[in-house]
Amino acid sequence: MRIYYYAQGTKAAPWIELLRAALPGAEVAEWAPGAPPADYVVVWAPPQQLFDEQPRLKAIFNTGAGVDALLKLRLPPQAKLVRLDDAGMSVQMAEYVCQAAIRHLREFDAYEQATRQGQWTFRKPRSREDYPVGVMGLGVLGTRVAQALRQFEFPVRGWSRSPRQVDGVQCHAGEDQFDAFLAASRILVCLLPLTPQTEGILNRRTLGRLQPGGYLINVARGGHLVEDDLLPLLESGQLAGAMLDVLRQEPPPAEHPYWGHPKIVLTPHTSARTDREASVAQIAGKIRALERGEPVPGVVDLKRGY
Amino acid sequence: MRIYYYAQGTKAAPWIELLRAALPGAEVAEWAPGAPPADYVVVWAPPQQLFDEQPRLKAIFNTGAGVDALLKLRLPPQAKLVRLDDAGMSVQMAEYVCQAAIRHLREFDAYEQATRQGQWTFRKPRSREDYPVGVMGLGVLGTRVAQALRQFEFPVRGWSRSPRQVDGVQCHAGEDQFDAFLAASRILVCLLPLTPQTEGILNRRTLGRLQPGGYLINVARGGHLVEDDLLPLLESGQLAGAMLDVLRQEPPPAEHPYWGHPKIVLTPHTSARTDREASVAQIAGKIRALERGEPVPGVVDLKRGY
Repeated sequence: MRIYYYAQGTKAAPWIELLRAALPGAEVAEWAPGAPPADYVVVWAPPQQLFDEQPRLKAIFNTGAGVDALLKLRLPPQAKLVRLDDAGMSVQMAEYVCQAAIRHLREFDAYEQATRQGQWTFRKPRSREDYPVGVMGLGVLGTRVAQALRQFEFPVRGWSRSPRQVDGVQCHAGEDQFDAFLAASRILVCLLPLTPQTEGILNRRTLGRLQPGGYLINVARGGHLVEDDLLPLLESGQLAGAMLDVLRQEPPPAEHPYWGHPKIVLTPHTSARTDREASVAQIAGKIRALERGEPVPGVVDLKRGY
Repeated sequence: MRIYYYAQGTKAAPWIELLRAALPGAEVAEWAPGAPPADYVVVWAPPQQLFDEQPRLKAIFNTGAGVDALLKLRLPPQAKLVRLDDAGMSVQMAEYVCQAAIRHLREFDAYEQATRQGQWTFRKPRSREDYPVGVMGLGVLGTRVAQALRQFEFPVRGWSRSPRQVDGVQCHAGEDQFDAFLAASRILVCLLPLTPQTEGILNRRTLGRLQPGGYLINVARGGHLVEDDLLPLLESGQLAGAMLDVLRQEPPPAEHPYWGHPKIVLTPHTSARTDREASVAQIAGKIRALERGEPVPGVVDLKRGY
């Protein structure tokens, strides 16, 4: 069995070493142009050339949760496209989102700004009942995030394409229920996969339906947000702020209006970094299952896009 | 039955209205000097005069978790001193501490400082295994905080005067195990009651035992920390930072060195604000129980101090 690893911007050696240790029988190498045919590839943002030269792949493993970049390429038709199910990412997403939601609810920015200026001033406590959180996307990551928010007694609603059930979370599904979901949310968390249906789903119309003084947390993909639409909503106060981990262009160009915006907290696509050990363990387990002819979780439905 | 309410710096009317509604048979008023004898008082930071003039009190209800300020006064010997058990405070403590711990682990300050300056730079992810959290005090608040931290998969240890058991938390007890507890912690959370035994417990010796690059979160009382000891520890890097909600003098004087310190985040004693509705419901329930001659939780052991 031959396996290639290829990830833009990531050192291959530690991944290859772990894959070799996890799959002793396999020949594991970094993919390079002209390499002989392999059975599996483990990739992040590979060039089209890789797939053009690898017609016999049984499966393609993406070292992230979102496969939107891969779906823009022509993939060998028989190859299963498999995404990471969790592999240490859901707890990181829960950390990021809870941190942002608590910070907003509890006005830590305002408090810290005040004490930095020598002011010891109380603010009327906000009731978390007035800060319902809406989580868009109820896959492995969205479910974990919704449950973590419930621990802090936030009212939590979820929205997904097809109906889901999450304990303690009021779940909405489909386009019909989207506006009701938005209208019942003040803090909005995007954890959707990026597909043609969800591209630009965070826009002036949808964000304008949130409860006044809304707060946007986007930890999915930059393509979900119509970036120009955010600014007037922040200016009018319809949105109180946003914490964004993803942008359409990363890094954003120097003239991007979000840099240094007083109501936008930017982080550089770091909400959930891939955990190498956990990912390799998961991928190796799935390769062993596929070799035994067994089904594996995380196979992407190419029509649906996730 | 007569009940007085008195709280320094708080409007009495909403409390009195709620107490009247919860205890229809009772005469409820704001305490004033010279008022006739009452059965119960609900207080925050009252003057000695109140107790001198109220020798027949059956119980004194403190509208906070910590009773250290009351224990400095002479209280009528037969009166039970009752603290709030939780009344909405534990979730707020969990929010505050998790926010601070996640922010430190995930280096959100550094990321935000970078993006504010137009830099989109990755940092090597920290492993939460390297950021064990030690929680001092395992009462209602400490236990809830420890459990909330476990949700984010932090390794969590607890320390308390007498042995406790908390699921998923390695518990230490007593002076003998204090140094081992400190040495195993990198993030230290103080939720102890302030007593003669715990006054100044956060000092150069104890904080110096934390794992290098430690982080202090004090949400208990300013008296726990020897304030002058913190600065050299921050300067040397033994401590990476601190988030402090309490100080020995609140507000701190203008010349206090913590104002604007780059490694100290200050909040103005707002980590867990008293929830009026939940507190009145709890106090009214306890008054009804005491009137029936039943025991109530939260009665302070005056010798122990909590």
